Amino acid sequence: MSVSTKKILIVHAQPEPDSLTAQFAAAARQTLEAQGHRVLSSDLYGMGWKAVFDAQDFPDRADAGRLSFIAESGHAFAAGTQTADVEAEQRKLLAADAVILLFPLWWFGPPAILKGWIDRVYAYGFAYGFEGQGNRLRYGDGLLKGKRALLSVMVGGPAADYGPRGINGPLDQLLFPLTHGCLFYPGMDVLPTHAVYGTGRIGAEAVKAELAAWRQRLVGLFDEAPIPFRRQNGGDYPDRHRLADALAPGREGLMVHVDTGL
Amino acid sequence: MSVSTKKILIVHAQPEPDSLTAQFAAAARQTLEAQGHRVLSSDLYGMGWKAVFDAQDFPDRADAGRLSFIAESGHAFAAGTQTADVEAEQRKLLAADAVILLFPLWWFGPPAILKGWIDRVYAYGFAYGFEGQGNRLRYGDGLLKGKRALLSVMVGGPAADYGPRGINGPLDQLLFPLTHGCLFYPGMDVLPTHAVYGTGRIGAEAVKAELAAWRQRLVGLFDEAPIPFRRQNGGDYPDRHRLADALAPGREGLMVHVDTGL
Repeated sequence: MSVSTKKILIVHAQPEPDSLTAQFAAAARQTLEAQGHRVLSSDLYGMGWKAVFDAQDFPDRADAGRLSFIAESGHAFAAGTQTADVEAEQRKLLAADAVILLFPLWWFGPPAILKGWIDRVYAYGFAYGFEGQGNRLRYGDGLLKGKRALLSVMVGGPAADYGPRGINGPLDQLLFPLTHGCLFYPGMDVLPTHAVYGTGRIGAEAVKAELAAWRQRLVGLFDEAPIPFRRQNGGDYPDRHRLADALAPGREGLMVHVDTGL
Repeated sequence: MSVSTKKILIVHAQPEPDSLTAQFAAAARQTLEAQGHRVLSSDLYGMGWKAVFDAQDFPDRADAGRLSFIAESGHAFAAGTQTADVEAEQRKLLAADAVILLFPLWWFGPPAILKGWIDRVYAYGFAYGFEGQGNRLRYGDGLLKGKRALLSVMVGGPAADYGPRGINGPLDQLLFPLTHGCLFYPGMDVLPTHAVYGTGRIGAEAVKAELAAWRQRLVGLFDEAPIPFRRQNGGDYPDRHRLADALAPGREGLMVHVDTGL
């Protein structure tokens, strides 16, 4: 293995082997392995991933009388009593230098099976409440700090619907709960989302072109500049809750948390 | 039953009977029934709702060789070969005059079990592709037109984190994929989200006050003004894709789709 060999976790959420999502997952594996990297894989449908976060996730309860997800999650993580499937995914995340999530956009978000991967794997102490510090180490700090993350999303509708004034809303804002809220939150550097639009009616030639563009995109996985989300502890949030008045003055909303220099 | 009797579907996604979500669901039922309304209920955890949308949803496939969710969903809906659980939820939605979704905010979105309720129940022909019209009848038009919808969300963190410049992003924008993308899309009038913040550390007195405020809120369920989302077919989107240049000039992002008169 060369000095530059990295580990990449590929998570994908589409059961049809011939789907664009599955083709993208296979192309990513092949491309990254050809570069000398090592690929870890979580084919959520193939694994029969349990999507629903519930009492079964806590075989050894801290409080058998009342189910608190935060308390039981923290207890199970600290005591080593998490379920084997959750532990395995956490180990992959910790081993990975980069994480790629591939999925079709369903109702403007991830399929339930992928949301359930986040819900269950993102334990208290692992992805939040890091080092017993409450909310102190998040948004740029956390256990997954230094890793890279990338969404690769198959969108049925046309790009125009997801543009700056498109009727569905801009894709980067629809996915903000995932990029900022799930990936940047525990410390990862998040690359701009790779989207393929119009997948509902895509033809064979266009698929070829999209696969080629995807392979090309992956070449820069470790060089590309991430989305400049503002770090909680970099000075932009003096009280750790609100953006400082002097930054993005007069603006509000999701995008003030991206440091565009304005 | 009086002339003003309505049917309300309450969907909730929290398995702990003592949770704030479950208490809110129970209070809603009681309050609405006391007003003379009829309540339909979907306790997703209690029902053991299947969250994952997969091949099992299509016992009678149009194409056994390749799984296309859109094609199979449309086929199953039209042919009457959907699974019984999905059909039952569709019947409840059709019967309801208002729909209330209650859930804890997990990673800035609904728990997987609720996302999976949308993924599976929102069939092609039912919630999209209405009347074989592709994208023509959506965002204010559709099968669920005229019904009201309301999210009631339990948020662990403090309100400041979800304010206009709060570090997590404004709650109404984080939930836009659900309010605009899942509720307004098939035609429902969506009321402003009812949020309770700081539920991670809430005390008994505060719970009492929040329950009282929730009961009060429900009194206006059929009178309150909905979020003024722009209708696709009301003239604001001349090409059905992009907001007209003359509206919200110079602005972009999710919030241009709310008609604030600016």
